[in-house]
Amino acid sequence: MQRAAALVRRGCGPWTPSSWGRSQSSAAAEASAVLKVRPERSRRERILTLESMNPQVKAVEYAVRGPIVLKAGEIELELQRGIKKPFTEVIRANIGDAQAMGQQPITFLRQVMALCTYPNLLDSPSFPEDAKKRARRILQACGGHSLGSYSASQGVNCIREDVAAYITRRDGGVPADPDNIYLTTGASDGISTILKILVSGGGKSRTGVMIPIPQYPLYSAVISELDAIQVNYYLDEENCWALNVNELRRAVQEAKDHCDPKVLCIINPGNPTGQVQSRKCIEDVIHFAWEEKLFLLADEVYQDNVYSPDCRFHSFKKVLYEMGPEYSSNVELASFHSTSKGYMGECGYRGGYMEVINLHPEIKGQLVKLLSVRLCPPVSGQAAMDIVVNPPVAGEESFEQFSREKESVLGNLAKKAKLTEDLFNQVPGIHCNPLQGAMYAFPRIFIPVKAVEAAQAHQMAPDMFYCMKLLEETGICVVPGSGFGQREGTYHFRMTILPPVEKLKTVLQKVKDFHINFLEKYA
Amino acid sequence: MQRAAALVRRGCGPWTPSSWGRSQSSAAAEASAVLKVRPERSRRERILTLESMNPQVKAVEYAVRGPIVLKAGEIELELQRGIKKPFTEVIRANIGDAQAMGQQPITFLRQVMALCTYPNLLDSPSFPEDAKKRARRILQACGGHSLGSYSASQGVNCIREDVAAYITRRDGGVPADPDNIYLTTGASDGISTILKILVSGGGKSRTGVMIPIPQYPLYSAVISELDAIQVNYYLDEENCWALNVNELRRAVQEAKDHCDPKVLCIINPGNPTGQVQSRKCIEDVIHFAWEEKLFLLADEVYQDNVYSPDCRFHSFKKVLYEMGPEYSSNVELASFHSTSKGYMGECGYRGGYMEVINLHPEIKGQLVKLLSVRLCPPVSGQAAMDIVVNPPVAGEESFEQFSREKESVLGNLAKKAKLTEDLFNQVPGIHCNPLQGAMYAFPRIFIPVKAVEAAQAHQMAPDMFYCMKLLEETGICVVPGSGFGQREGTYHFRMTILPPVEKLKTVLQKVKDFHINFLEKYA
Repeated sequence: MQRAAALVRRGCGPWTPSSWGRSQSSAAAEASAVLKVRPERSRRERILTLESMNPQVKAVEYAVRGPIVLKAGEIELELQRGIKKPFTEVIRANIGDAQAMGQQPITFLRQVMALCTYPNLLDSPSFPEDAKKRARRILQACGGHSLGSYSASQGVNCIREDVAAYITRRDGGVPADPDNIYLTTGASDGISTILKILVSGGGKSRTGVMIPIPQYPLYSAVISELDAIQVNYYLDEENCWALNVNELRRAVQEAKDHCDPKVLCIINPGNPTGQVQSRKCIEDVIHFAWEEKLFLLADEVYQDNVYSPDCRFHSFKKVLYEMGPEYSSNVELASFHSTSKGYMGECGYRGGYMEVINLHPEIKGQLVKLLSVRLCPPVSGQAAMDIVVNPPVAGEESFEQFSREKESVLGNLAKKAKLTEDLFNQVPGIHCNPLQGAMYAFPRIFIPVKAVEAAQAHQMAPDMFYCMKLLEETGICVVPGSGFGQREGTYHFRMTILPPVEKLKTVLQKVKDFHINFLEKYA
Repeated sequence: MQRAAALVRRGCGPWTPSSWGRSQSSAAAEASAVLKVRPERSRRERILTLESMNPQVKAVEYAVRGPIVLKAGEIELELQRGIKKPFTEVIRANIGDAQAMGQQPITFLRQVMALCTYPNLLDSPSFPEDAKKRARRILQACGGHSLGSYSASQGVNCIREDVAAYITRRDGGVPADPDNIYLTTGASDGISTILKILVSGGGKSRTGVMIPIPQYPLYSAVISELDAIQVNYYLDEENCWALNVNELRRAVQEAKDHCDPKVLCIINPGNPTGQVQSRKCIEDVIHFAWEEKLFLLADEVYQDNVYSPDCRFHSFKKVLYEMGPEYSSNVELASFHSTSKGYMGECGYRGGYMEVINLHPEIKGQLVKLLSVRLCPPVSGQAAMDIVVNPPVAGEESFEQFSREKESVLGNLAKKAKLTEDLFNQVPGIHCNPLQGAMYAFPRIFIPVKAVEAAQAHQMAPDMFYCMKLLEETGICVVPGSGFGQREGTYHFRMTILPPVEKLKTVLQKVKDFHINFLEKYA
């Protein structure tokens, strides 16, 4: 019956050629138009295709979850189906996903989250008082005292206050204003939101966004989405991936010929490169931004992940203020943090914040307006962020356990950072800079000419070819350096140091054996 | 010391005019450039201003959290500061935020969420077994068995399976494929993601997106952000806000002169208009989309919110399949659902899903790639979505309490829908269509010429002027119809029916008194 009705209607539908106008070739369109009059003959050409889709989205690349990770998924399915491989499991060292690698959540954080989620538990004797205190405070600030209500677009007020207090402590008293804090859906959301507001102009006045090479590919992806101009500055691999201001100068001068460089992105501690910037270097970068009138984006999500005894994390905000009023009252800065990294590794909650400095009041209004279209960041993620910035303090019931858990995670990461550097540097044809911070090794690998030719034959980047072989032969999933960017003719891969120590040792041994074997094979 | 260093460096910095090139007037720039040589004289012109920002973002409007809501916030602060008003509290009837209005969360949902958050509770006797069963199943499917791990970009597999099973049940057996399900950060995220992929072309071939007027302003906001062309079709207020296909024809034909209409957005049940589409109407819309080769977006987040006894929710997916293969194998459709509405009202968790039909396989790849840049939707929101689609069933321990809570919420909403319609229609100068579904009344209000003139004197839309007065005199915050779009010369406002029955009665009485008084004042 339905069909009949449909057929009748189809019969009398107006057949304007324009209703087929979206097809690629109008000749083909005519032909297919004729076809369509006879029902159920063939599938019509689709409206949304690679040809018709948003070309900026098509241009987006995101290696951390790219082809290599899809391949890893296929191999896992094959293993499940009992297909024999030279290994029994895929080890996903491609992404900084601590808890997926077996890291346990911080007990206090989850206790507060559970109390907020199911407030009946506030009467339970099995939860500590300091956790209940935190939960009550968060719930008091939520609409209807529930995580189930929307928050203000900028985030829950008392959580923004706790973030501001944390920043003030972190920066040795440099004041932070809750009004400058925006809670976000992870750091990625904050970074893409502020870039979305910054990008403008066309042709030679299109906004140029300076990013480090190697970079975290969120930056190149968002720049593609926004059709902005990517301006690369290269980190100095010979100098522990340090940032050199002369290289910034080169990059900005060259960029001015074809775009309007307006934004400078810094990742500190570095991802994927793991360097921790010196205070002097940060001062130079801030002066450069001041001089060149660049809006500073400081990606500081690894601020708790510093391992080298001779390195310390310095926030751009703190250094900016210490450089004096000419800088602290003029340089526009957005800094980002997240619940996903550090010692808590709560990636799934998608919590984060952004602090803005010297943002024009009218732009703050625009920012809140833009955020309000998506209503608010997940309130559960906001609550998680609150515990990260407002953990138990000495004297509180949960302090000892919290400190023990925190130190254990960070101590292990430091151990694994050193272990990874040392073992990689024992392998001929691999060189690894010190892992001063963050969660990754980004070793440089020598790929023989014959392997490069083999890769070209497979239309693959040489390091993609290398990583695919590594995955197929060992089950270890790492990301090729080409996904982050690297100097022409150099090859790298990014590997997380998150597997437990013993497992990490096995992984490193397997990479070593694979690499030696690879060099022989393509000698 | 720092300052000194800064000054020295500033002294020797290269003073290229181009480093000031971003200023509005180059004369002013020169002047200020000179000024800047002397430190701490005045604040430099900012990089990011209303003039330099992304013009598409500047064009975005989002009334549901617009000026009226900012004003409501100011008034709340004044009340807190003890400033006397003709009322003691602000009632935020501007947004569908159920729990903020006192609605209690569904116990079972929060129990499962708490168990997932803090798995130690799986040993607690105070949680029902069926809740533990759900929690174990979700955790089993999470990396490291933790909500703290990233999920796949498309969402947790077993949750996508539960969504597919729910849709199949809902649609009386029409099959749903988990591979076509994408979990999202609320429905807003899914809608903007699919629109982002769809928008392309320039000039006359720019993508046109058809949206109902009145609309939910997420649509106009995303269309602005993406620089797409908004194509309005008007709902028929004289006919209970029904959608008329002849109006769709008029809109698409006119649009073809200046853009490429490629997308048709439907909101059913309607927001802000509350109509529930008949099956016949949905069939006509699908045929129209098939005929005109339009990609269908079906916003079905209020699918559980149908109150009129003579209305039923029909999903576009189900009707599409019942219309036969020519439609079900050709029409491209994306449908959206959310944890925020229905009977659970879990807005804060930002959970949702999108089901795609007939999406080109290559586009599915592009979609996953685009989603992967933001890593994944909040896993806690995904878990909440799982409970919404996989609630307790007859025979399970929690079934009775769950059913009681669900019926109580929906029963109350039905009662309040009728109450609101009846009371509004008793007021001279207010006409309110039946609230067949969703959570809002969108009454038409008569605004006298003198009030229109007064509004113009304040450079306000007449209904904004009306709503501001309502807020200032009664503390009731509603959203002017101009924020949703309405026929020229007609005026409306959107009010949620979420306050508890007794409070809602008071609100409606206050609106009535205000309106009568308003008519007298501007007679």
